[in-house]
Amino acid sequence: VGDNSSKLRTVLLQALQRSSFIILSGGLGPTKDDLTKKVVAEALEKKMVIHKPTLASLKKRYEKRGIALSKNNYSMAMCPPDAQVLPNPLGAAPGLIIPHKEKQIILLPGVPSELKAIVEDELIPYLLKQKEKNYVIKKQVLKVWGLPESAVGEQLEDLMEENQNPKVGLRAKIEGIEISIVARAGTPLTAEQLIETTESEIRKRLGDDIYGTGDTTMEKVVGMLLSIKKKTVAIAESLTGGLISSLITNIPGSSNYFKEARITYSNESKVALLEIPEELIKKHGAVSKEVGEEMAKNIRRIAGTDIGLSATGIAGPGGGDSKKPVGLVFVGISTEEEVKVEKYQFMGTRAMAKKRTALATLDMLRRYLIAR
Amino acid sequence: VGDNSSKLRTVLLQALQRSSFIILSGGLGPTKDDLTKKVVAEALEKKMVIHKPTLASLKKRYEKRGIALSKNNYSMAMCPPDAQVLPNPLGAAPGLIIPHKEKQIILLPGVPSELKAIVEDELIPYLLKQKEKNYVIKKQVLKVWGLPESAVGEQLEDLMEENQNPKVGLRAKIEGIEISIVARAGTPLTAEQLIETTESEIRKRLGDDIYGTGDTTMEKVVGMLLSIKKKTVAIAESLTGGLISSLITNIPGSSNYFKEARITYSNESKVALLEIPEELIKKHGAVSKEVGEEMAKNIRRIAGTDIGLSATGIAGPGGGDSKKPVGLVFVGISTEEEVKVEKYQFMGTRAMAKKRTALATLDMLRRYLIAR
Repeated sequence: VGDNSSKLRTVLLQALQRSSFIILSGGLGPTKDDLTKKVVAEALEKKMVIHKPTLASLKKRYEKRGIALSKNNYSMAMCPPDAQVLPNPLGAAPGLIIPHKEKQIILLPGVPSELKAIVEDELIPYLLKQKEKNYVIKKQVLKVWGLPESAVGEQLEDLMEENQNPKVGLRAKIEGIEISIVARAGTPLTAEQLIETTESEIRKRLGDDIYGTGDTTMEKVVGMLLSIKKKTVAIAESLTGGLISSLITNIPGSSNYFKEARITYSNESKVALLEIPEELIKKHGAVSKEVGEEMAKNIRRIAGTDIGLSATGIAGPGGGDSKKPVGLVFVGISTEEEVKVEKYQFMGTRAMAKKRTALATLDMLRRYLIAR
Repeated sequence: VGDNSSKLRTVLLQALQRSSFIILSGGLGPTKDDLTKKVVAEALEKKMVIHKPTLASLKKRYEKRGIALSKNNYSMAMCPPDAQVLPNPLGAAPGLIIPHKEKQIILLPGVPSELKAIVEDELIPYLLKQKEKNYVIKKQVLKVWGLPESAVGEQLEDLMEENQNPKVGLRAKIEGIEISIVARAGTPLTAEQLIETTESEIRKRLGDDIYGTGDTTMEKVVGMLLSIKKKTVAIAESLTGGLISSLITNIPGSSNYFKEARITYSNESKVALLEIPEELIKKHGAVSKEVGEEMAKNIRRIAGTDIGLSATGIAGPGGGDSKKPVGLVFVGISTEEEVKVEKYQFMGTRAMAKKRTALATLDMLRRYLIAR
């Protein structure tokens, strides 16, 4: 629905005729095109009052940033007197639950990060309390790196027949293949047992190709392993341009195991920052197994860490030729035991090549750490 | 709709009763839970045949990656004989347009990057040809960095009244505030003129706070400016952990202006890699105006570039105290003319602090470049 009062009103009245819970997102901000609260209040014939705790937290928020609260900002603290306010941990405008007869109208901010935070922290717990069900649904997600979707599908074919319980599904993402296991049962315990049986069967078949569960990420798994094994890491990045380091440092506490990275985007900086011999680059090219090895070895030595990682390749769209096409990538790892480089041929855009290279590098680190 | 044949069939038949164009996304992959094509063909009573050009391109794709085409992969080349195939530039499964009486069922892959590419390259041009309309809608988006949403709203208040043409709306994103201008008119030219008048009024009020239009990004704008002004850049990153460099290197051809980055996540690496005097860190702390200045100055000198950028701060959730709270950030720029550091206090999660810091740093570079 666009920022249009009459369309918004029509949709709201329509939804009220058929649903018990109506969720609207967006239009709670401080500006003129933020109409949602006003339209809902008018449609339900409710007046609006200042919600004092919200106003106080708005004031505090703006003070901290050194900005005065403008009159427009006051609108974010207005709500019907019988509304329940859902605090917004990441932004200014809170969510609202407005009761209307047997129904509830739920207003959430449109900024995706804020919406997500309120849904997870406030709305889901609230909704779970609303309705007693006579069955439960439980879901587990397994994340796979290193196999194409079709290969995973073939290995799990017998588990993926329709109308099985649990239901097994696959989804291809840049971050790898996601296997979902959804069980429906009379009690949480039974549902969990159903999932457990299927999960352990899948784990038996796919082994270490499964890198995590649920909403974990490769960088979380790697961070946990580095912490447990007390290893430090430094990174030499070329085509990924800082993405591997940025992923690793997304994890709170990563400064305990991540020491430094050198982003060497030119041949000269590879020579100056990573001490790669010029002749080696001349002989094999910057995108080669040999240079990848040297990058991993040298960053480990120079930074004095337990592990050195490297990535060099052609992200595209330019820079490729028939011998070294766009998407050709070498990722490397250097440890006290060995230096290893793997070759990949990725497809897709520049951003996809960067992301897949970063994940392949982290996955190499993951497999090294779990083997130790 | 879950991966469930009967639910999928019900939804499809329902949609056929009320819409002329029905778009389904997902379920076109090679595995057992990919049901969409099969269910649609059965519901429309169409047989499925091999689409030879698709099969050929699948074979080529898999050969390039050195994988044999499995029997499951053949399903991705099947379609009803009267379907129009929409090639997938980023993945294996193509989209399809299946005619049915006066209606059209459009199948798209579920992987977001692939769906987006097919919609933009194939589906929108196709749909535009389908229907002659007696009016046109044109949209322009202006992107703003450096002002809160409420400040933009106050400056544009008179342009944002409801039922105006063009319609002006705001949206707050991590990447700044987006102003949309939507015009409706009898001809494309009139719509464009309407937009132009409003756009130039907004530009007069907001000036350089507008960093770009449409689907441009801060890193694209900065890359273009660096290319035009023939300036090179090197980056010293602390809390952003490589994110600034990764954004800059998302742009094809960035190797012409981006030379290197040093990700110094520890005090020791700041001393070793950026030659920051130990006493300076001891006296002011690593998160300080003084260290930010020194980082920008030193990376410029060491890398021999025209411009040096720096970012140091506390990403959180740990590491803050009452004097230096989580979200405190210093971003710096060093050029032949000056060294400048700006202080920010960001709110929100670790990932948001990293992203906002990276954008603030790039915006500082942008403002420097446009002033020259």
